[in-house]
Amino acid sequence: MPTPNNPSPNDAAAVQELLGGKFGEMSTLMTYTFQSFNFRGRNRLRPFYDVICSIAGEEYGHIEAVSYAINLLLTGTTKRGFDPEPGPLKNITDARNTRHFIASGQTALPMDSMGDWWTGQHVFSGGNLKLDLLHNFFLECGARANKMRVYEMVTDPTAREMVSYLLVRGGLHVVAYAKALELLTGVNVTKLIPIPELSNKAFPETRKYEENGLHRKLYTFSQDDYQQAGIIWNGSHPEDGSELEVVFGAIEGAPAPDLEEEPQLNSPGADDIDLEMFKDIAAKLGIKI
Amino acid sequence: MPTPNNPSPNDAAAVQELLGGKFGEMSTLMTYTFQSFNFRGRNRLRPFYDVICSIAGEEYGHIEAVSYAINLLLTGTTKRGFDPEPGPLKNITDARNTRHFIASGQTALPMDSMGDWWTGQHVFSGGNLKLDLLHNFFLECGARANKMRVYEMVTDPTAREMVSYLLVRGGLHVVAYAKALELLTGVNVTKLIPIPELSNKAFPETRKYEENGLHRKLYTFSQDDYQQAGIIWNGSHPEDGSELEVVFGAIEGAPAPDLEEEPQLNSPGADDIDLEMFKDIAAKLGIKI
Amino acid sequence: MPTPNNPSPNDAAAVQELLGGKFGEMSTLMTYTFQSFNFRGRNRLRPFYDVICSIAGEEYGHIEAVSYAINLLLTGTTKRGFDPEPGPLKNITDARNTRHFIASGQTALPMDSMGDWWTGQHVFSGGNLKLDLLHNFFLECGARANKMRVYEMVTDPTAREMVSYLLVRGGLHVVAYAKALELLTGVNVTKLIPIPELSNKAFPETRKYEENGLHRKLYTFSQDDYQQAGIIWNGSHPEDGSELEVVFGAIEGAPAPDLEEEPQLNSPGADDIDLEMFKDIAAKLGIKI
Amino acid sequence: MPTPNNPSPNDAAAVQELLGGKFGEMSTLMTYTFQSFNFRGRNRLRPFYDVICSIAGEEYGHIEAVSYAINLLLTGTTKRGFDPEPGPLKNITDARNTRHFIASGQTALPMDSMGDWWTGQHVFSGGNLKLDLLHNFFLECGARANKMRVYEMVTDPTAREMVSYLLVRGGLHVVAYAKALELLTGVNVTKLIPIPELSNKAFPETRKYEENGLHRKLYTFSQDDYQQAGIIWNGSHPEDGSELEVVFGAIEGAPAPDLEEEPQLNSPGADDIDLEMFKDIAAKLGIKI
Amino acid sequence: MPTPNNPSPNDAAAVQELLGGKFGEMSTLMTYTFQSFNFRGRNRLRPFYDVICSIAGEEYGHIEAVSYAINLLLTGTTKRGFDPEPGPLKNITDARNTRHFIASGQTALPMDSMGDWWTGQHVFSGGNLKLDLLHNFFLECGARANKMRVYEMVTDPTAREMVSYLLVRGGLHVVAYAKALELLTGVNVTKLIPIPELSNKAFPETRKYEENGLHRKLYTFSQDDYQQAGIIWNGSHPEDGSELEVVFGAIEGAPAPDLEEEPQLNSPGADDIDLEMFKDIAAKLGIKI
Amino acid sequence: MPTPNNPSPNDAAAVQELLGGKFGEMSTLMTYTFQSFNFRGRNRLRPFYDVICSIAGEEYGHIEAVSYAINLLLTGTTKRGFDPEPGPLKNITDARNTRHFIASGQTALPMDSMGDWWTGQHVFSGGNLKLDLLHNFFLECGARANKMRVYEMVTDPTAREMVSYLLVRGGLHVVAYAKALELLTGVNVTKLIPIPELSNKAFPETRKYEENGLHRKLYTFSQDDYQQAGIIWNGSHPEDGSELEVVFGAIEGAPAPDLEEEPQLNSPGADDIDLEMFKDIAAKLGIKI
Repeated sequence: MPTPNNPSPNDAAAVQELLGGKFGEMSTLMTYTFQSFNFRGRNRLRPFYDVICSIAGEEYGHIEAVSYAINLLLTGTTKRGFDPEPGPLKNITDARNTRHFIASGQTALPMDSMGDWWTGQHVFSGGNLKLDLLHNFFLECGARANKMRVYEMVTDPTAREMVSYLLVRGGLHVVAYAKALELLTGVNVTKLIPIPELSNKAFPETRKYEENGLHRKLYTFSQDDYQQAGIIWNGSHPEDGSELEVVFGAIEGAPAPDLEEEPQLNSPGADDIDLEMFKDIAAKLGIKI
Repeated sequence: MPTPNNPSPNDAAAVQELLGGKFGEMSTLMTYTFQSFNFRGRNRLRPFYDVICSIAGEEYGHIEAVSYAINLLLTGTTKRGFDPEPGPLKNITDARNTRHFIASGQTALPMDSMGDWWTGQHVFSGGNLKLDLLHNFFLECGARANKMRVYEMVTDPTAREMVSYLLVRGGLHVVAYAKALELLTGVNVTKLIPIPELSNKAFPETRKYEENGLHRKLYTFSQDDYQQAGIIWNGSHPEDGSELEVVFGAIEGAPAPDLEEEPQLNSPGADDIDLEMFKDIAAKLGIKI
Repeated sequence: MPTPNNPSPNDAAAVQELLGGKFGEMSTLMTYTFQSFNFRGRNRLRPFYDVICSIAGEEYGHIEAVSYAINLLLTGTTKRGFDPEPGPLKNITDARNTRHFIASGQTALPMDSMGDWWTGQHVFSGGNLKLDLLHNFFLECGARANKMRVYEMVTDPTAREMVSYLLVRGGLHVVAYAKALELLTGVNVTKLIPIPELSNKAFPETRKYEENGLHRKLYTFSQDDYQQAGIIWNGSHPEDGSELEVVFGAIEGAPAPDLEEEPQLNSPGADDIDLEMFKDIAAKLGIKI
Repeated sequence: MPTPNNPSPNDAAAVQELLGGKFGEMSTLMTYTFQSFNFRGRNRLRPFYDVICSIAGEEYGHIEAVSYAINLLLTGTTKRGFDPEPGPLKNITDARNTRHFIASGQTALPMDSMGDWWTGQHVFSGGNLKLDLLHNFFLECGARANKMRVYEMVTDPTAREMVSYLLVRGGLHVVAYAKALELLTGVNVTKLIPIPELSNKAFPETRKYEENGLHRKLYTFSQDDYQQAGIIWNGSHPEDGSELEVVFGAIEGAPAPDLEEEPQLNSPGADDIDLEMFKDIAAKLGIKI
Repeated sequence: MPTPNNPSPNDAAAVQELLGGKFGEMSTLMTYTFQSFNFRGRNRLRPFYDVICSIAGEEYGHIEAVSYAINLLLTGTTKRGFDPEPGPLKNITDARNTRHFIASGQTALPMDSMGDWWTGQHVFSGGNLKLDLLHNFFLECGARANKMRVYEMVTDPTAREMVSYLLVRGGLHVVAYAKALELLTGVNVTKLIPIPELSNKAFPETRKYEENGLHRKLYTFSQDDYQQAGIIWNGSHPEDGSELEVVFGAIEGAPAPDLEEEPQLNSPGADDIDLEMFKDIAAKLGIKI
Repeated sequence: MPTPNNPSPNDAAAVQELLGGKFGEMSTLMTYTFQSFNFRGRNRLRPFYDVICSIAGEEYGHIEAVSYAINLLLTGTTKRGFDPEPGPLKNITDARNTRHFIASGQTALPMDSMGDWWTGQHVFSGGNLKLDLLHNFFLECGARANKMRVYEMVTDPTAREMVSYLLVRGGLHVVAYAKALELLTGVNVTKLIPIPELSNKAFPETRKYEENGLHRKLYTFSQDDYQQAGIIWNGSHPEDGSELEVVFGAIEGAPAPDLEEEPQLNSPGADDIDLEMFKDIAAKLGIKI
C-alpha cells in the first residue's frame, strides 16, 4: 500500500464505513464466520459449507487491509512532539471523528463513517441455507455499493488502491454467492450482476488486480479443507468470461506497513525502554531477533 | 467436545456471555486484533507486538469453541419435524433468548447472556503500550471472573469442558500480559495473580489440560512470525513454577462437531437437493469428495 | 380476530418479533415508505415506484394487526381491580417482557421478542433501484422465515390467525419484488420461491385467505395513484398458477377489537369522568355520538 | 415546496432532527399510532380516542414533508456524472452526515441531526389517559422548540417553508392536547401556551398558513370515523381567538416533488432499461400510463 | 430497610426499572443535576433554580435506596460456598437478569427491568425554563406510574417499603414542579394531580411517612444555599391541605445495610487478608477504627 | 474558571469526552458510587470501602467542573436576540455537535465527543475487591490519557484550567487505587505510574494546584465517615515524595459561574415574569433574597 499524498482525518473517517459499517468488512467477516460455525447438515451440503468457509477465511485479511489504509491516512496528521503545551492536536477539534485521536493512537477502530460502533446485529446467520445465501448475495452487493461511493469520496491513492482491491475481491464474492444460489435452485442469479450497474472496470486501479486474475480465483485459505468449493466455483466469469479457478491455500499478502510513532499521543510511549535488555534476553535464550 | 446430557436453551443463553459479552471472546479477539493492526513503533518494541499477535491468533479458536458449545446445547431442544401445526417450538416462548430460535437456526450469535449484541465499543486500542497492556491484563482477569461464574451456573459437561479449557488458556493470557508489563516496567505484576483469588485448580475439568502443559505453552500460530514472543514468555509459571514455553505454530484443535439438522426450523432446508448432481460435477472436474 | 383461549404474556412477548424485530412489520413499513419518499427518477421508472408505494400502503395495516394480536394476548393476564395491596401484577415478575406492564398498559410497543426497541437502522433505502429491490426481496423472505417460526412457537388461535394472514400477504410481497426484479433484469427470480422451502399451504389458517384470492391480489391503497403497478403485477402466481390481479383501493379490513380496561394499571383511568358532559357538549354542537 | 437556493449537506443534516430526533415527526407519528392501537376503554372515552387518531393520521404527512425538504436540500450537492475517477463525492468527506451519501442516494433516513437512528424508545404509550395526554402535550411543546431552533439554523427557503408549515400544524396539536387535558381535568392548560414563549407569528412564513386557517382546523383524515373529536376541538384559539373547526377528511396536500437522478451514486441506475417495453406491456394489459 | 422474606432474583430484576429505567431515579437525578449546571439567568430566576437544586440533591439518596433494596433482594439467592463444582449458581440460568450474577456480585447496576443500560438520552435539559419544568412535572408523574406498577409486581416488604417511601417523596416532587409552573404561568397545574388518578394513600406503607410529614417537607440539602425555594414551596398540599414546609439541610437517612459476603462469587474475596495488619497501621498512624 | 478567550462549539464538543465518554467523569462517578452501594463485607474490609467512597464523593464535583467548562465555551457562540428571521444559529449547521443547540440551551449533556450518550454499560462493579480495584486503577489511567489528549486539542484557557485541575485530582486517584492494590496484595503497583508516561508536570496549569498540595490530599467529603481511608492513603507520593494526607471533609470549591442568557434559544425565556412578585412573596414569608 502506498503512503498517502495527503494524510487526512476526514478521509480516514470516511473509509471507516468499509471497516465497521453495516456493509463493512466486519459484517462480512463475522457473518460468514458464524454461518460456518452454525452450519447444520454440513456433510450433506458440503460444497456450500466449503464456499462460505473459504470466503470467511479471506475476510480477516480485508479488515486488516482497511485498517492499515485508515492508519496510513491518519499517520502524521497531528504535530509530532512530546510537549502538550502548544496544542499538537488542535486541528483535530474540527475533524469528524475524534475517536481516532482520543480513544485510539491515530488508528482504526471497529466503527463506521459516523463513528458508530460495529454491532453483532449486523450478523445474519438464519440457518436456512437458501435464505443465508440470498442474504450473502445481497450483503456483498450492498458492500460493493458502499465501496464505490467511498472511492468517489476519497481520492487519495492509498485509499483507492485498497478500495479497488476490495472491489475486485468483493466482486468475486458476489459471483460466488450467486453461483451457490444457482447450484441450489437452478435460477441464473449471476445474470443479475453487476449490482449497482457500474462495472468494476470503471475503477482504474482495479485493472492490475484483474490482470492477475484476482477476480476469478477463489482461495480456500487451507491446503486440505474446503476441497468441494470447486463444485460451486467453476465455469466462466459472468462479466468477462474468464475461467473461474479454485486455489488451495491463502492469497498472497502484502507486508504490513510499519506505522511511525506519534509521540504527542504517547503512542506507543515506552521511550526509555532499554533495547539492549531485549538483546540480552534474546541472546541468553537463543532467540533470533 | 462431548454431546450434552441435557440440551437446554437457558444454559445456552448463559454461555453466550462468554462469546459476546463485554468480557467475552469477541472482545479479546477483536481487541488484540486491532492492537496488532494499530501498533506504532513495532520494530522498536517487537516482543510486545509478537505476544499480542500470538494471543490474537488464538482467540479466533475461542469464539469457535464457545459457539460450538452453544450450538450443541441448543441442538434437539425443539420437537423435530416438518409440520408447523403442532407448534414444534412452543416450549421456546418461555426460553430466555428467543433469538436462538427466530434469528438463528438454534445456533450461536455474537450477543451476551442478556441477548445484547456485541459491540465494537468493547474494543480497547488506545495506542499507549503500557496502557494497552494494563487493559489487556484487566480484560483477561475480568474474562476469567465471567468464566468462573458461568461454570457455576451451567453444570452440563459440554459447557464445563469448554469453559475449563478457556480457563486454562485464558489463565495463560493473564500471565502473559502480566509478564509483558513486568518486562516493560520492572513491577512484579504476576504476583497479583490469581484474580479473582480462586485457583483454576478448583475446576476439576482443567486438570487434564494443565497436565498437558496447556497453562504454560504460548502458541504463536505461525511458523515464522512472532519469534520474539519468547523475550517475554520465559521463566516459570507464577502458580505452579512449571516452565514457560513458546511453541511456534498453532495449537492442536479438536474436530468441529457436526450439527444435526433441525427441519422444524427449515435449517438447513434444501431437502430435495440432488446429491448425485454434486458427485457428477465433482467427477467431471476431478474434485475429490 | 378471535379472542385468545389462553392470554399469555410470554406468547405476546414472542409475537413482538413480528412487530418490532429486524424483519418485523415496522421494518417493512418504514423501508418502503422511505424508498417511496426517496425515489429518484420516478417518472422514468414509474411501475417500480407504484409497486413500492402500494406495498408501503399495506404495511400500516400490518403493524396494526400485529399490535392488536399482542394486545389481545395481554388482556386479562393480570388480576383486575383497583387495590394495589394484594399485588395484582405479581405473576409478572417472571414474565419475559416487563415493558408490557410497566411502560405500557398491557399493550404493544415497537420492540422485538427480546424487548429491544425497533431502530431506524433497519431501514434500507440505498437509492439504486436494483439493489433496493433485491433488498426488499430478501427482507420479505427473512420476514417470512420469522413468521413461520413464531407460528411454531405460539399455538394460540388469535396469534395464528394473524400470523397466517401475514404469511399470505407477505408471501404476495415476496412475489411482487421478485417480479419487479424480473422486469428490471430478465432473470426469473420468482423461481427462487419459496424461501424457506416450506409452502404457506402447510399452515392451515392460510387456506381461507388463499381461497379469497388474498395471495394474488395487489392492492394499491388509492383509487387514482399507482396505476402502473400492473405493468409488474400480472401473469400467474409462481406457486399455484392463479391469476395475479391489481385492485385499486384499500384491502377490506376487520373492525378493530375493543380492548377491555385494566384498572389495576390505571389503564385508562379517568374513572370519575362525567360521561353526560360529553353528551351535553355533543348535543350543543350537533355532534353525532 | 420551493427548490433550494443553496442545496447543502449540512443544512440537510440539521433538518434530520425534525424527522428522526427524539422530538421529531417519527416520534409523534409512532406515539399517537401506538396510543390509538393500545387505547383501552375507547367506547367510554371516545372523544379522546378520536383526537389522538386524527392527529396520528396527520403525522404521516409530516414525515413525508420533512423527508422531501431533506431530499431537495441534498439534490445536486455532488458532481453529477457516471465516472468515479474524478471523485464526484469528494466534497462530502467534510460533510457532517455521510449516511446521506453512502447508505442512501442523497436522501433522507430515519435519524436525527447527529445521525443517530430513530428508536422505538421514543414512543410513549403508558396506558393511563391523563398521563398519555400530558406526555403528548409535552412532546408537542418539545417538538415546537426543536422546530424553532432548526428554523434559526437553516435559512434556506425550502427548509423554512416546511418548518413554518409544521410550526403551524404542530402548534395546533399543542392546543389539541391542552384542550383534551382541560376536558378531562377542568384545568385551563391552554393558558400555558405558548411553550417556548415565542409566538409562531415571529416566523414570517407561517402567516399565509394561518391566514388559511391552518392553525385552527383539526382534520380527521377520515370521512366517517373520529366524529367525536369535536367534543374536544371547539371554542376559540387561545392565541388569536379564532374559531376552532373540525374538518372531516384529509388535509389538502401539495404534489410530491420529483427528485432528479444522481448518476454518480447510481441512483436510481437502470439506465439501459427499455422504456418501450413498459408501454408495450401497458398497451397489452390496458393500463393507462 | 427490612431484610426480605423471600430474596428473589426476579423481584430484584423488576425493581431495577426504578433505578435505571427511562423513568427511574438515575433519570431524575441526572436531569435535575444537568438542569442545575445548565441554568441560564439563575440570578433573575433564583426560586426556580433553588427548587431544582433542592430536588437534585435528594435524588442521590434515591438511587442509593433503590440499589440497597435490589441488593437485599439478591443476597442469599445462590448457594453459598467456595467450591464451584456443585454449580452454586445453577438456579440462575432461569433468572431474568443474569447481569446481577455475572457482571456484578449479586448487586445492582444502572439498568432497567429488561437489563437495558441507563443512558444519558434520558436526560432532558432543554434550556427553556417553562419547557424544562413541564418536562419535570411529566417525568415525575411517569415515574410515579412506574413505582405504582412495580409495587403491584413485587410483594416483598423490603421492596414495598422502599417503593412507598419513593412514592411519598416523588409525590412531593410532582407537587413542587406543579407549583413552580403555577408561579411561572398562573395556571393551576396542581389541580391535575394525582396522575395516575390513584392516590398514594392506597399504598399502606406510605402512611407512616405521610404522618411524619414527608409528603409536605421540601429539603434543600444545604444549610445556606437554595433559600428561595420557599418562594415556590409554600401554601397547602393539594391532596390533604397540610402545610408545605421548606427544611434547610438534608433529609434524615437510614443506616446503609451491611451486605453479607457471597463467597461463591468471590465477592468480595480477599479471604486471606491479615486484618491485624490494618489495626497495626491504624495504631501507628493514630487512626480510630 | 476564567471566561474563554474564544468560545467555540467544536472545542466544547471535544471537551464532552471528559464528561460523558467511556473514560469520562460520569463513568468514574457512577462506577465508584455503585461499588460503594454494592460493597459486600464492608466491615471486614473497611479501609478499601472508605477510599472508594471518598473518591466517589469527589467525582460529583468533577462532572460539575467539566459541565461548566463546556457551558462557558458555548456561551455567546450564536447571535443573541429574539428574532428568528435572520437565522441567529446559522453558523451552527457546520458545528460538530448540534445537540448543544437543539436538545440543550447551549449547554452540556451526558454524552461524549462524538455526541454518543453516556451509558450505564461503562459502570464496572464486579464484586470481587481485587478485580474492582484493578479496574479502577486502569479506568483512572485511561481517563488520564483522555485528559492529556483533550488538553492537546483545546488550547482555550478555560478548558485547560479545568483539564489541568482534573489531571491533578485524577492523578491522585490513580495513586490511591494503586496503593489500595498494594495494601491488598503486597505488589508495588505505584511503580507502574505514570501511565501514560508523560508527567503531569508537563502541563503548566497543573503547577499551582500541586503547589497547594492537591496532588497529595485525599478528601473524604464527610466529617465523620471514611476515617479508615488513611490506612491506605499514607506515606509518600510516588512521583515527588511529598507526604500523603487525608483531609476530613469536602474540597474547597470555586463559585459556580453565572451563565448569561441566550434569548435566541429562548433560554431561559420567562422574559415577562414579574420579579417584584418574587420579592413580595419573599417579604410575606420572611425569605431572605
